[in-house]
Amino acid sequence: MTRTVYVNGEYVPETEAKVSIFDRAFLMADGVYEVTSVIDGKLVDFDGHAKRLERSLSELEMRNPVTMDELLEIHRELVKRNDLEEGGIYLQITRGAPADRDFAWPDPDEVPSGIVLFTFAKKLVEMPSIKTGIKVISIPDERWSRRDIKTTQLLYPSWGKMMAKKKGCDDAWMVEEGVVTEGTSNNAYIVKGNTIITRALSNDILHGITRAAVLRFAEEAQFKVEERDFTIAEAQEADEAFITSATTFVQPVVEIDGAAIGTGKPGDVSLRLREIYIEESLKTAK
Amino acid sequence: MTRTVYVNGEYVPETEAKVSIFDRAFLMADGVYEVTSVIDGKLVDFDGHAKRLERSLSELEMRNPVTMDELLEIHRELVKRNDLEEGGIYLQITRGAPADRDFAWPDPDEVPSGIVLFTFAKKLVEMPSIKTGIKVISIPDERWSRRDIKTTQLLYPSWGKMMAKKKGCDDAWMVEEGVVTEGTSNNAYIVKGNTIITRALSNDILHGITRAAVLRFAEEAQFKVEERDFTIAEAQEADEAFITSATTFVQPVVEIDGAAIGTGKPGDVSLRLREIYIEESLKTAK
Repeated sequence: MTRTVYVNGEYVPETEAKVSIFDRAFLMADGVYEVTSVIDGKLVDFDGHAKRLERSLSELEMRNPVTMDELLEIHRELVKRNDLEEGGIYLQITRGAPADRDFAWPDPDEVPSGIVLFTFAKKLVEMPSIKTGIKVISIPDERWSRRDIKTTQLLYPSWGKMMAKKKGCDDAWMVEEGVVTEGTSNNAYIVKGNTIITRALSNDILHGITRAAVLRFAEEAQFKVEERDFTIAEAQEADEAFITSATTFVQPVVEIDGAAIGTGKPGDVSLRLREIYIEESLKTAK
Repeated sequence: MTRTVYVNGEYVPETEAKVSIFDRAFLMADGVYEVTSVIDGKLVDFDGHAKRLERSLSELEMRNPVTMDELLEIHRELVKRNDLEEGGIYLQITRGAPADRDFAWPDPDEVPSGIVLFTFAKKLVEMPSIKTGIKVISIPDERWSRRDIKTTQLLYPSWGKMMAKKKGCDDAWMVEEGVVTEGTSNNAYIVKGNTIITRALSNDILHGITRAAVLRFAEEAQFKVEERDFTIAEAQEADEAFITSATTFVQPVVEIDGAAIGTGKPGDVSLRLREIYIEESLKTAK
């Protein structure tokens, strides 16, 4: 089936979905994005993603070409037009397409922001990798400093994913000044007994929407949450490890740099958190 | 006049120049670029740019969709079709447009690289800013680590240009660990007596094509060249300062963070180097 996607105000078949070569996201990575997951045809934590989008735009002085109500409407329309039961919606806003390439930002009154959305179907609740867990490698974190802004500057995370694949692994955890920042497209956690440990929020990592929800649910379920740095060595000695993201929810990690974590199988705490996350998220999905 | 641009094998009017929303440069900044200047309808140091392009592609395991001979031919055809006397040609190669967004790189046998080129007219030899010089501010260098690869991850340099503009200045010099790396889209230099000082090549800065030529011409003209780190404080005390890039050649800098450099006017050494650069470049332009 050919998807219907949304490009700068129009619903078009994906084969005709094009943007100008002068779009600043194409020429200068001058764009921000969000990915909202869909379960049972409903949007998971749309408000959380909308809020983070506003923050990314505001940090970069970029305008949202639509209101949040319109954005929700476009999301729902795409779910409908594409009969999307489970998967996600990718949204990107760019600083538009001026008449020419220039490092200086165009006047937003003259050049409207660009906007693109498309759906993707994916098994999220019954992901095959949940049963086996994933293997990660560690790589140095070579990204720019403002990882709290969700920009399209994803070349290094993408490269990191390939480094992992070349080593027969699934993902990479990035390390800076001796401690883990995050995964290539997810936040990273370790579990010790009843305690869930993850790096504290700062400009150094993405402020995961799934992260916020999982930590909240974890505390409600009487787990202890410690937001602090941890090393790869500490992770390798932990009882469990996992990642969170909008499209993996809670995904157990069973190996880091060749060392098995805990029993080498998905841990009970990770799986329990995943269960709670899906259950709770569905209650507020819309 | 509507420009004719080159997009994935076709010459099209700029108004119809579009790429798929799934192009990886649009979604993930997975693209590299070059800008070659044009004087008298001829390409300046095409071979230098072609060589650096090959290096960028090779570092990222990206394929060139055309041969270097074809690339030269496209450059010349664009100069011809657009009657370009003076200005430049922008070239971008991307990892193509797979059927969907994925952090993992697509198989290059299935997804060919994308390629886009366009011209821009600009007065290069008689740039007005040469007579006045430009003013720069210093900002922290927040970019990713592999600045030697000329990728489209230009959001921070673009942002830096805006920070400069907001302070009534023209550009920003980026500072890391106390020393200058480079300008937002150029290499940075200071002059002390007969000595030209600029940061040594590494992964920390772009290996400027104009930089290489200017340093070579400088030594031939009996200037001393020192490739080493320098601070903003040292730059403010220098006799002269300047930047180099493909589209500014040698551009004098007359103020750094509010402090006038030397006499506060474009320096003799900078202007002499500019003269030599233009003279020598024209000899080999093709």
